[in-house]
Amino acid sequence: MSQQLIIFDTTLRDGEQSPGASMTKDEKLRIARQLERLRVDVIEAGFAASSNGDFECVRAIASHIKESTVCSLARANDRDIARAAEALQPAARARIHTFIATSELHMQKKLRMSRDEVFEQARLAVRFARNLCPDVEFSPEDGYRSDPDFLCRVLEAAIHEGATTLNIPDTVGYAIPELYGQFIRTLRERIPNSDKAVWSVHCHNDLGMAVANSLAGVMIGGARQVECTINGLGERAGNCSLEEVVMAVKTRRDYFGLDVRVDTSQIVPASRMVAQTTGFVVQPNKAVVGANAFAHASGIHQDGVLKARDTYEIMRAEDVGWSANKIVLGKLSGRNAFKQRLQELGIESDSEADINAAFARFKDLADRKSDIFDEDIIALMGDESVTHEQEHFRLLSLSQHSETGERPRARVAFASGEQELHAESDGNGPVDASLKAIESMVGSGAELLLYSVNAITSGSTESQGEVTVRLQLGGRVVNGVGADPDIIVASAKAYLAALNKLRSKGEKVAAQG
Amino acid sequence: MSQQLIIFDTTLRDGEQSPGASMTKDEKLRIARQLERLRVDVIEAGFAASSNGDFECVRAIASHIKESTVCSLARANDRDIARAAEALQPAARARIHTFIATSELHMQKKLRMSRDEVFEQARLAVRFARNLCPDVEFSPEDGYRSDPDFLCRVLEAAIHEGATTLNIPDTVGYAIPELYGQFIRTLRERIPNSDKAVWSVHCHNDLGMAVANSLAGVMIGGARQVECTINGLGERAGNCSLEEVVMAVKTRRDYFGLDVRVDTSQIVPASRMVAQTTGFVVQPNKAVVGANAFAHASGIHQDGVLKARDTYEIMRAEDVGWSANKIVLGKLSGRNAFKQRLQELGIESDSEADINAAFARFKDLADRKSDIFDEDIIALMGDESVTHEQEHFRLLSLSQHSETGERPRARVAFASGEQELHAESDGNGPVDASLKAIESMVGSGAELLLYSVNAITSGSTESQGEVTVRLQLGGRVVNGVGADPDIIVASAKAYLAALNKLRSKGEKVAAQG
Repeated sequence: MSQQLIIFDTTLRDGEQSPGASMTKDEKLRIARQLERLRVDVIEAGFAASSNGDFECVRAIASHIKESTVCSLARANDRDIARAAEALQPAARARIHTFIATSELHMQKKLRMSRDEVFEQARLAVRFARNLCPDVEFSPEDGYRSDPDFLCRVLEAAIHEGATTLNIPDTVGYAIPELYGQFIRTLRERIPNSDKAVWSVHCHNDLGMAVANSLAGVMIGGARQVECTINGLGERAGNCSLEEVVMAVKTRRDYFGLDVRVDTSQIVPASRMVAQTTGFVVQPNKAVVGANAFAHASGIHQDGVLKARDTYEIMRAEDVGWSANKIVLGKLSGRNAFKQRLQELGIESDSEADINAAFARFKDLADRKSDIFDEDIIALMGDESVTHEQEHFRLLSLSQHSETGERPRARVAFASGEQELHAESDGNGPVDASLKAIESMVGSGAELLLYSVNAITSGSTESQGEVTVRLQLGGRVVNGVGADPDIIVASAKAYLAALNKLRSKGEKVAAQG
Repeated sequence: MSQQLIIFDTTLRDGEQSPGASMTKDEKLRIARQLERLRVDVIEAGFAASSNGDFECVRAIASHIKESTVCSLARANDRDIARAAEALQPAARARIHTFIATSELHMQKKLRMSRDEVFEQARLAVRFARNLCPDVEFSPEDGYRSDPDFLCRVLEAAIHEGATTLNIPDTVGYAIPELYGQFIRTLRERIPNSDKAVWSVHCHNDLGMAVANSLAGVMIGGARQVECTINGLGERAGNCSLEEVVMAVKTRRDYFGLDVRVDTSQIVPASRMVAQTTGFVVQPNKAVVGANAFAHASGIHQDGVLKARDTYEIMRAEDVGWSANKIVLGKLSGRNAFKQRLQELGIESDSEADINAAFARFKDLADRKSDIFDEDIIALMGDESVTHEQEHFRLLSLSQHSETGERPRARVAFASGEQELHAESDGNGPVDASLKAIESMVGSGAELLLYSVNAITSGSTESQGEVTVRLQLGGRVVNGVGADPDIIVASAKAYLAALNKLRSKGEKVAAQG
């Protein structure tokens, strides 16, 4: 049995399925590159057959990623598997991940299939996938709530047909560490050919135990792959957190005795990128990546901790990529300094044109904000990537006024394709007035699900505001993000960005894992 | 062995120690009342000897809470313990919780004491406490990293001197479920009089396993008390989450076989109150209390889930207090309707004057916002409670303007005691300009650590903005919260609220748990 623990990241597939976390192709590609820098073993890039958009995402990631295996999810049918194989065709290393539910509840209520039908479909799917790709993972959905006898039968057949990884999802987050570990151990002991595949864990966090369950699956169950997401992103309470599981294995190597390839110094940059892209904030008291996770990283100096850091800290903030918030650039910084800083931040760009456009935004920002921090640069590049989408709506100018006793008013000018539109509205506040002005011209009818603001740089009242607006229209949910030193401007930008996304993306099939 | 699991909430003590989470007496009292409605067994109300302010908080909570045991922390010395007993004097049921570190690292680096000195001090402290109070808890700080032989000696003596609860803290969040459970089991097996006390677990979440560790301490170790906080609030990655541990025990009663007294329908109201008071947001993918924790509670309707909810949900949102976001009151609602709604929301008030003041604010808000939601009412009462503090600074009026190509400007009028001050400033954005205007007159010199905005009510662009401003001055960190439909006004209110807190509170001694 290998002493290597395989880290399988599914931020871009299971994480993205979280309502409101959907991402564009450029956003996914940017995150995939960061996952490659993080040196995860497998990147689950999407679910190719779910939509043309997702197919393109998987294909783009398969084309660009060289160091990690790129994986696509596929239901257990030939069409899904063929689409996955097609999307993965450019990959240096590809994996097809096929799944079908095996719990009575899911088979009866969702699939409306008998045990024998599910068994047969699983078997044929793995066989078909294996003919297209040497690396095939099979997941019995809701596996932990499945009848062990039936599950053994299905898994044995999957290995026989050539599945190289078997994943046992706790789809609804119902497991307890000891029970989950023993469940996997029992399966491995009962299935005669179990040593022919790598066993994998996939846990959800509904009872707050996804990390402990995953690690019990490894230590008690003998699994050697953990499926996880950055920031624990995912539906409901999310998936197992990559950063927590990796740091637990590293910090308690005395107990786990396992190696992970992950470059932990890339954890915090990855966390910020995912939080910024999806608008899913990380709470300050989140392990490893929360703003308060390390006492001395929160900007507060406590005597006790400074005296003997190991008295209260079992990890070092530097090891997971926290660095002091330092002024890096200003008004007088040139294009080379900017480009070099991008490289240091791990932000790659394919074209000089992209860098030029970002540099222009940087100069514009530097005119209005004296100190430019790393976070500002990351936000700039975020703005930049949005430009790649069909940017139909674009803010041209905004003017607003509010005064105690009067109703706030805003005037907005924005581009709608080739047209220039002007709108004016009042509202409860200047943000409300600005968004109402835009909506009065666009008439999208979208429902606002979330509006949130974070200061990009703390430690100064000159921070930029980063606004996330989440809109829902006809069952689709999108996030728009906008950054500007003026919070009202950032809000208008975010609203227009969300409208652009609503225009540009189609429906897709949902999968659970 | 009892089949009852004792829930010991330390939101107001260990939770409050989190940098930036400090609360005023009124805020603590409001949360204590909510904890009583939640029916936690023990409320750790503070650390009476740490400051006069904390003494008053413990005393006020001890005076008002009837259903839960009220507890104060105390270092293992006579002065601390006597102060705790004094503060707890009005309590219906009181507990003194005394602690001293027992790990080599903490004894050498922090206490600079020998083993024998620590042993003697622990023994005498428990004896002294037991003479003042029949309910005494003893914690060996950093217990999980302590030498088991020495720890057994200390704990045996503590029980001998009359400690009724023994708590084994994993102070730095280093434990693994299996190891932590076995550690406690071994202690209980080796200590001859171990059955004379209730054993307790206290876990931190640095590796994301606080809940699983706590429950392993219960199932493997035989502990019957769990120490936890609402939202997992606490230093660094925080403490074990009350909501997660309670819902795990309830949902998996088949495994745990334990009863908890907690009224789970009060969980979400408690979570919101703590998040709002401390400014520590709850991430959407947080188990149980995150906005996305229940698929159908996030405002998004997914076919699969609606078809058969139990396919993907193991708990019901209603059971933890999520309710549909409904319009409850409007412009024409009267005082009685308002008062009744307060009662339904579990918001109690001591005086009719308080209700009148809140009702006046309600009418003011209803003039500007057509639909008033539960969240708006909770925010109103939040505003109200701040009034009780020495409200030295108070916003009178604000006017601001921003326009593309010009520098944003703000004019602010505010009361400073009896004086009326007028200030004007420009800034990078209208928020920056408003706060700079205030700061130009006050000259506090405080550093802004955090600025964040949440829409109080989602689902409408007419939401109020709730702004949290965290300031640091001379090592002290305070939060100010302000709510208003105009985000700029909310920001100015929050800044003034934070300045009020900086004026009103003194230093206190820090303790770790």
